[in-house]
Amino acid sequence: MRPSGRSLDELRAIEIEPGPMRHAEGSCLIRIGGTHVLCSASVEDKPPPFLKNTGQGWVTAEYGMLPRATHSRNRREAAQGKQSGRTQEIQRLIGRSLRAGVDRQALGERQIVVDCDVLQADGGTRCASITGGWVALRLAVNKLLKAGVLTTDPVMDNVVAVSCGLYAGQPVLDLDYAEDSVAGVDGNFVMTGRGRMIEVQMSSEGSTFSRAEMEDLLGLAEAGCQALAAAQNKAVE
Amino acid sequence: MRPSGRSLDELRAIEIEPGPMRHAEGSCLIRIGGTHVLCSASVEDKPPPFLKNTGQGWVTAEYGMLPRATHSRNRREAAQGKQSGRTQEIQRLIGRSLRAGVDRQALGERQIVVDCDVLQADGGTRCASITGGWVALRLAVNKLLKAGVLTTDPVMDNVVAVSCGLYAGQPVLDLDYAEDSVAGVDGNFVMTGRGRMIEVQMSSEGSTFSRAEMEDLLGLAEAGCQALAAAQNKAVE
Amino acid sequence: MRPSGRSLDELRAIEIEPGPMRHAEGSCLIRIGGTHVLCSASVEDKPPPFLKNTGQGWVTAEYGMLPRATHSRNRREAAQGKQSGRTQEIQRLIGRSLRAGVDRQALGERQIVVDCDVLQADGGTRCASITGGWVALRLAVNKLLKAGVLTTDPVMDNVVAVSCGLYAGQPVLDLDYAEDSVAGVDGNFVMTGRGRMIEVQMSSEGSTFSRAEMEDLLGLAEAGCQALAAAQNKAVE
Amino acid sequence: MRPSGRSLDELRAIEIEPGPMRHAEGSCLIRIGGTHVLCSASVEDKPPPFLKNTGQGWVTAEYGMLPRATHSRNRREAAQGKQSGRTQEIQRLIGRSLRAGVDRQALGERQIVVDCDVLQADGGTRCASITGGWVALRLAVNKLLKAGVLTTDPVMDNVVAVSCGLYAGQPVLDLDYAEDSVAGVDGNFVMTGRGRMIEVQMSSEGSTFSRAEMEDLLGLAEAGCQALAAAQNKAVE
Amino acid sequence: MRPSGRSLDELRAIEIEPGPMRHAEGSCLIRIGGTHVLCSASVEDKPPPFLKNTGQGWVTAEYGMLPRATHSRNRREAAQGKQSGRTQEIQRLIGRSLRAGVDRQALGERQIVVDCDVLQADGGTRCASITGGWVALRLAVNKLLKAGVLTTDPVMDNVVAVSCGLYAGQPVLDLDYAEDSVAGVDGNFVMTGRGRMIEVQMSSEGSTFSRAEMEDLLGLAEAGCQALAAAQNKAVE
Amino acid sequence: MRPSGRSLDELRAIEIEPGPMRHAEGSCLIRIGGTHVLCSASVEDKPPPFLKNTGQGWVTAEYGMLPRATHSRNRREAAQGKQSGRTQEIQRLIGRSLRAGVDRQALGERQIVVDCDVLQADGGTRCASITGGWVALRLAVNKLLKAGVLTTDPVMDNVVAVSCGLYAGQPVLDLDYAEDSVAGVDGNFVMTGRGRMIEVQMSSEGSTFSRAEMEDLLGLAEAGCQALAAAQNKAVE
Repeated sequence: MRPSGRSLDELRAIEIEPGPMRHAEGSCLIRIGGTHVLCSASVEDKPPPFLKNTGQGWVTAEYGMLPRATHSRNRREAAQGKQSGRTQEIQRLIGRSLRAGVDRQALGERQIVVDCDVLQADGGTRCASITGGWVALRLAVNKLLKAGVLTTDPVMDNVVAVSCGLYAGQPVLDLDYAEDSVAGVDGNFVMTGRGRMIEVQMSSEGSTFSRAEMEDLLGLAEAGCQALAAAQNKAVE
Repeated sequence: MRPSGRSLDELRAIEIEPGPMRHAEGSCLIRIGGTHVLCSASVEDKPPPFLKNTGQGWVTAEYGMLPRATHSRNRREAAQGKQSGRTQEIQRLIGRSLRAGVDRQALGERQIVVDCDVLQADGGTRCASITGGWVALRLAVNKLLKAGVLTTDPVMDNVVAVSCGLYAGQPVLDLDYAEDSVAGVDGNFVMTGRGRMIEVQMSSEGSTFSRAEMEDLLGLAEAGCQALAAAQNKAVE
Repeated sequence: MRPSGRSLDELRAIEIEPGPMRHAEGSCLIRIGGTHVLCSASVEDKPPPFLKNTGQGWVTAEYGMLPRATHSRNRREAAQGKQSGRTQEIQRLIGRSLRAGVDRQALGERQIVVDCDVLQADGGTRCASITGGWVALRLAVNKLLKAGVLTTDPVMDNVVAVSCGLYAGQPVLDLDYAEDSVAGVDGNFVMTGRGRMIEVQMSSEGSTFSRAEMEDLLGLAEAGCQALAAAQNKAVE
Repeated sequence: MRPSGRSLDELRAIEIEPGPMRHAEGSCLIRIGGTHVLCSASVEDKPPPFLKNTGQGWVTAEYGMLPRATHSRNRREAAQGKQSGRTQEIQRLIGRSLRAGVDRQALGERQIVVDCDVLQADGGTRCASITGGWVALRLAVNKLLKAGVLTTDPVMDNVVAVSCGLYAGQPVLDLDYAEDSVAGVDGNFVMTGRGRMIEVQMSSEGSTFSRAEMEDLLGLAEAGCQALAAAQNKAVE
Repeated sequence: MRPSGRSLDELRAIEIEPGPMRHAEGSCLIRIGGTHVLCSASVEDKPPPFLKNTGQGWVTAEYGMLPRATHSRNRREAAQGKQSGRTQEIQRLIGRSLRAGVDRQALGERQIVVDCDVLQADGGTRCASITGGWVALRLAVNKLLKAGVLTTDPVMDNVVAVSCGLYAGQPVLDLDYAEDSVAGVDGNFVMTGRGRMIEVQMSSEGSTFSRAEMEDLLGLAEAGCQALAAAQNKAVE
Repeated sequence: MRPSGRSLDELRAIEIEPGPMRHAEGSCLIRIGGTHVLCSASVEDKPPPFLKNTGQGWVTAEYGMLPRATHSRNRREAAQGKQSGRTQEIQRLIGRSLRAGVDRQALGERQIVVDCDVLQADGGTRCASITGGWVALRLAVNKLLKAGVLTTDPVMDNVVAVSCGLYAGQPVLDLDYAEDSVAGVDGNFVMTGRGRMIEVQMSSEGSTFSRAEMEDLLGLAEAGCQALAAAQNKAVE
């Protein structure tokens, strides 16, 4: 029934290639089906100004999409002179999500900037960015631990994300573009490796949903997040 | 226990004054405790370009805050030359929420722009904007119906919003600033008058939450939204 | 003869409500007929950089208009990414005018930012902003005096403003939008409570004027400013 | 007593060189003492959009200053990405002033853009721009008349401008920078060749003025404008 | 002697992977040593406005670099709100270069936009962008030819580019970052497959060069371009 | 054969007027035929931040063009809110070229900003800007030497520039607009007074060129640069 032939609770193929970017402290190329995101984590020695002399660090994220990552070419945001509201919303979500998995006191007065650049889009780019962004972050922190810059691990748990939605009236896991573009209800779920929730965003476009439908989507998301966390762990070994 | 002395499931005082803006097709001043938002609905004869010749209309929203709506003065966005990511995120949410309550076919090829300007902020400005924005929209549509421009009512149901969060470990309804600024988990719930969900956004800053806590907040929100919808109905009579 | 039925030298109804904004050091809502402006004065502990170590303070102003303050909706300046030339011209005028009534040495090294946001426009918004802005400023300074932060009052005199113009060939006081939009000659007069002039701006669009006509307008303005100063004094008591 | 040794009612040396810009329909280099402004008038075949199908034309102006026209280098506005409030205020004044001397019906559906670029500044750049801008405009219109594009002359009268102010307590004509930078009261007067007033802008910085002082400045300005109009007429012959 | 151990006239390893971007009409990932650029060619049915009704088409290019493509993270241009002068200079060069190899009449009234995004930088990104951009363009045109949209091949010849410079006083081919950052003289050479020159840009920073040195660099470039063209041809087969 | 009647290797008339800008440390008005550029050099006491505490200085340049310097009016960059890619490319070239003639150690920790503003354009504005910019720089440095601020002359040699191109199949020196707008191949050559090369930029639009043609253009440029350097020397005496 799904355009891809997947069953309702089936994720797309997950591939996470660690370390593709030579200069970054941590990086990965994550492929969730046809959605490909290149993620890097850059460690900066100073925290943002508002955290000076607090002993705490910060994790922030930026998100971008190549102009031809999509079916038809989008205008380049740098050429337009501003980031769209959608871009800003997504990068705020990525940063907030990753911070939920980090002990900022243990990180100390430094900042990690996670860049997520979508090379190819087929739905779920923000979720892939969070899942891949965590891998880049984990690898960068590993490097700091190995070098003795950090002695306590500030990464408290995995952070993973997946989308679910109502497609043709059915709750389905991990929407691809063909599904996402027609789904009336669509949610993004960010969770920890242990299954705690970090962020739940369910929204409907021209439609509404019941509490029972919400429960169905949550159940799918919990299972999907477990599989994604396992893939993360394999990639960072 | 709450700074305001309210009980856990108690909303702040709601006042909705219809019609304060002479020129707008619909308007209201909504006061949810110390949060005051001036909302207007402006009817434009043409839909946005992407809906030309589709027979459908559009509802969109813009959000702003006076520089001294807050404890300390914020820089004016017009002077800074751009809207913040937060502003864009909020106005996208307001627009999406209001559209969920409107039959865009019945609206026909026109656009209604809802402006929500916060005159004073004490937490929950985005929820107050949605609740007040719907009143402005309802009044503008009433005017079109009365004038015979519209013959079928495109407004399908009330749209209301309220925030809930975990404050000092307890689920509380309708966070004010004193609560919101320290709550580790915080959610915005947008619902219809009949209790269907439109948007659920739960997020945590430096913390996570369980499914059970999520259920508690949802329960509080459902009750709060009923009261808000009643206040809307009273205001538009 | 005037659209409003007023006599040639008659001001519109003046209402000045002090203190509507909880967070501001001083604020007022001024209503000059259908023109409503919300004014706040924010005290900042530091002067602008160019006054560091001079012992002098500064007063500056910002001006804005809600998109639907006017007959048809104007684009939001924050969304357009810049303030119009008109906005900048007006806020420079407000700041210059208010500074003329303040002893900047007595103010000391601090800055007062006066925000004037037009909630509803019916002509004369810049004059209402100056008149209301002074009330907000006066109230903020009163607070500093009361708290002992200031010991000498830096406010030397009232600052008031009114517009006059040639409407249907006749000199009239306090133009409303119906008059302003067709007046060939139009002036803004900023004066002190004692009747000294601070700023005179007379301009014509597609027309010219004689020195005698200028004298007529000045005479009307002087009388109008007296009445406005009395209203200010009553509001700040 | 004046830094330049001029008498109180003495203008600086006026030189107006017509035609220095090969490509412009009309141009001049105006030198008022050490203030040098290069003015051009460009004729465009179409009016601005808001005048389409009205039979009327438009005159508008833009103003700029070379970075090193002043004592110390100013940042280039093009590099800063915006025109300052001062620049916008000045170019709006120039456009409004020149339009007052033009019959827009006789001009027909075309636009004349007057560019005023300050090559060297020594006070009074906006007045020199108006006086020189009119010469460029006059020459461009002459060209249209000669070519038979226009058959009725739309230029109704000269437009000239001069500044006056209170320097060391005395009313003086045509302030140079040394005077302008210390004058407490300062006015710009735009008049027609026949002595009608177009625009009067008197303002004070940290000071106020009486009606009598205003009269004195007006008197000086009237005489100065006559001399400037004579210089214009000589240049365009 | 070279940091990489290459001989003076030795190119870095060239890998050109065709077709990595599912949605683009043509694409490749080009790797010149550690410099990796993802190139796509997007076909648009309409030419830019200035070519309407001329029967001619256009080829243009945009260039970007991921923030962490470099040793230390660069600010994202989209977040800064503008493209740097360097970026604009490079994308103008790429567009001009590719157009030199295209018969714009044969292309007809359409536009091909070539996007070159640097995933990893190790010197020579503009040259790799031109060489890879041509492959993307060639593949997109092949698709149009195959589909019968085009019947005459508008691609007249390969377009390739390579840098050469004086490193430690010696002329070397294909500078990597270690060489480029210290080379006093540095040139980019764009040529056709048949060895005609399209663009020569030699510049020095804090140094100068003789005509003989220029000849040496040209000679190296000619040989390098032959090898690059062969790699292109292999990739597009 | 050339539109101007010049012989193939003939420069246009060169006039360099030193010192036209009263406030600048150095300035000139350079006229190369109908191309007129006003150049100033402004000395700043501090180097740019990246050179703090290095003992070295900097030379940078900005370029602009009056809106009506050209046949039809161009939009003012300050009004558009950004400098075009062309402008940025040119000003980067001017700065790089002038730095090649300066010993930055001898200049010490200061910055010289060279502004080149085109008053009238007839082809070759970037070359005229370099040639004239050097004169302004030379004069500013002379002033510093004379004042004893500098004791060693940091100017090592003249910097001059000229364009050459293939016009109607023939190599010609110093293209004017009539030639430049149709030339298929066009080069800018920046050299020192002693004939060393600083920058060579040859590019073709819709055409290619051979190495032999390149040699021809270089030969013309060398002769032209000698004459330009002689004119510079005469102007700065």
